[in-house]
Amino acid sequence: MSGRYFEDYPPGAVFATGTLTVSAEEIIEFARKYDPQPMHTDRAAAARGAFGGLIASGWHTGAMMMRLFADNFLSPEASVASPGLDELRWLKPVRPGDRLSLKVTVLEARPSRSRPGEGIVRSHVEVLNQHGEAVMSLKPISLIRRRPA
Amino acid sequence: MSGRYFEDYPPGAVFATGTLTVSAEEIIEFARKYDPQPMHTDRAAAARGAFGGLIASGWHTGAMMMRLFADNFLSPEASVASPGLDELRWLKPVRPGDRLSLKVTVLEARPSRSRPGEGIVRSHVEVLNQHGEAVMSLKPISLIRRRPA
Repeated sequence: MSGRYFEDYPPGAVFATGTLTVSAEEIIEFARKYDPQPMHTDRAAAARGAFGGLIASGWHTGAMMMRLFADNFLSPEASVASPGLDELRWLKPVRPGDRLSLKVTVLEARPSRSRPGEGIVRSHVEVLNQHGEAVMSLKPISLIRRRPA
Repeated sequence: MSGRYFEDYPPGAVFATGTLTVSAEEIIEFARKYDPQPMHTDRAAAARGAFGGLIASGWHTGAMMMRLFADNFLSPEASVASPGLDELRWLKPVRPGDRLSLKVTVLEARPSRSRPGEGIVRSHVEVLNQHGEAVMSLKPISLIRRRPA
């Protein structure tokens, strides 16, 4: 979201995003490269398996989460990098046709001690499907530039 | 790794993997889809930026980690799912030409109370580059089937 700086992420602020729709083709393409387990790559094997059909790799869901996070929460002017994240949970299967969106709540925002032009924002991200169910949650850490004086 | 079951992941066990080589083309392709920030998608902008050149999206590094984890640590017979992970850290930039491998150490392995045929394995994963430097670390949780009687 263009134009946001560290000062625009106060603790308690909530950001919602648009949606991304998951396709079977993309689930299979991602998983063939990065997570070639039959529940992600093989429709027939997935149908016989524990989830009763094809489900997205958790890392694919994470990548789609990142797309929504980059487009709707971070800004090109101020996003520096991420040192990491905590407490990632995959809560429900993500299936072909699901429409994913994010609810992002700022947990903490503090100026960096070592990098005076930047701040550290910790947030809670819920990845929701079209039924409003959380399919994934995580607490990312973001380094964000402070607004120029 | 074919044939491994829950019983083959005792606490303290260490698993090493082969390598994956990162290309500039794949960094850009992944990031255009999932993390379209200039440090990942635009060679010229990346060269002028904080990292002095193109670097992989952290989620791309995670996806490559998953490929090595699926091929070398999990087994097709016994891998059920993952409820999540903790303490993911992106420690150093991943650049075109880097060769990544994993060192996986089992932290904890206990039978599931709710699912008697399965166990819960918590591990510490270090993603290493060709210089032996850790570029990423995380603590994934894996549900693994117990060996059939």
